[in-house]
Amino acid sequence: MRLEHFIAARKPSTIPEAPSDPISRLIERRWGAVLAADVVEYSRLTSLNEERTYFLYKAHRHELIDPKIVEHGARFVKSTGDGILAEFGTAIDAARCAIQVQQSMAERCKDEASDHRIVFRIGLSCGMIIADSEDVYGHEVNVAARLQTIAPPGGIAMTGEVAQTIRCTLHLPLEDLGMQQFRNMCRTVHVFQCQFLGNGDS
Amino acid sequence: MRLEHFIAARKPSTIPEAPSDPISRLIERRWGAVLAADVVEYSRLTSLNEERTYFLYKAHRHELIDPKIVEHGARFVKSTGDGILAEFGTAIDAARCAIQVQQSMAERCKDEASDHRIVFRIGLSCGMIIADSEDVYGHEVNVAARLQTIAPPGGIAMTGEVAQTIRCTLHLPLEDLGMQQFRNMCRTVHVFQCQFLGNGDS
Repeated sequence: MRLEHFIAARKPSTIPEAPSDPISRLIERRWGAVLAADVVEYSRLTSLNEERTYFLYKAHRHELIDPKIVEHGARFVKSTGDGILAEFGTAIDAARCAIQVQQSMAERCKDEASDHRIVFRIGLSCGMIIADSEDVYGHEVNVAARLQTIAPPGGIAMTGEVAQTIRCTLHLPLEDLGMQQFRNMCRTVHVFQCQFLGNGDS
Repeated sequence: MRLEHFIAARKPSTIPEAPSDPISRLIERRWGAVLAADVVEYSRLTSLNEERTYFLYKAHRHELIDPKIVEHGARFVKSTGDGILAEFGTAIDAARCAIQVQQSMAERCKDEASDHRIVFRIGLSCGMIIADSEDVYGHEVNVAARLQTIAPPGGIAMTGEVAQTIRCTLHLPLEDLGMQQFRNMCRTVHVFQCQFLGNGDS
């Protein structure tokens, strides 16, 4: 059902009580693996040189990241200004995309001065999300965005569910960071991370 | 010039030295007023009730915020998951939009329980920005996003330039917060804020 339909059906000043009320049946939910990527210290890089930062960021996006996201079959992609939010059909697709991006970024930037280098952090989460024509929403989207902020520069932070799913397929060296409590989130999150050598910041 | 053209023109491993090099002439710059709006404690609201938060947020967007943004002639709008980034041709248009949104939100939500209420923070900035077909970029965009994080719930934080521009036209009671240093930004920002009564959180 399109968003406009259930917006029009809403009675003003009535707060629906999910999950038992009719609203939950009007919201499109699907299982998805969410990848959130952002540039480390983007504001500092922009302050140093706005145009060069923009240019290099867009070059990495168009030459590497966007093609990788397409290659791994993302169902939804949006720009977050200094990064990307993408949703994939499987955690393995999302993780493969993240790994290939970070490995290629380390190679692309190895000769650049570390204080001017574009380095990405990536967060991965998976579970039920809410999707409409404009964006993706829900707890797992928020978790991926938070994981991105604590990921090592040039590395990946992921939930326990993503780690369990990819463990036997991708053979990635994962560090268990234990249960983490993020501000304003009711549930703790089991976090694993991996770093990639050659990045200079890791 | 389209992004693809200067991406294709880029020589790999050459870091352009803006502003004197040819790259600066290939980037589209324009003056713009940037409005960044986000929901206060969106992760907490999502943790409490994912579907209701999504539904109420979308209702406020479609019934109030999106029409206001269109009404005031925004040139660029994008969803930020729990908010909006919009660019206007004048600071007065951006400020009028922000004021009308916050005044209407206070009215719309006055009967809702304060711990379940959707409340927006808004940041306003203006100056030269970088724009392409996908997004807007640059220092002023980052400043608007940071101002949004320190704005009072239900209120607006803005740069000194926005405050000077709107002062004689909109007659808004502005509080001078002085020069603020944001993390990872080389320049300090003169910040003004205004609050709106009836919000419960202000």
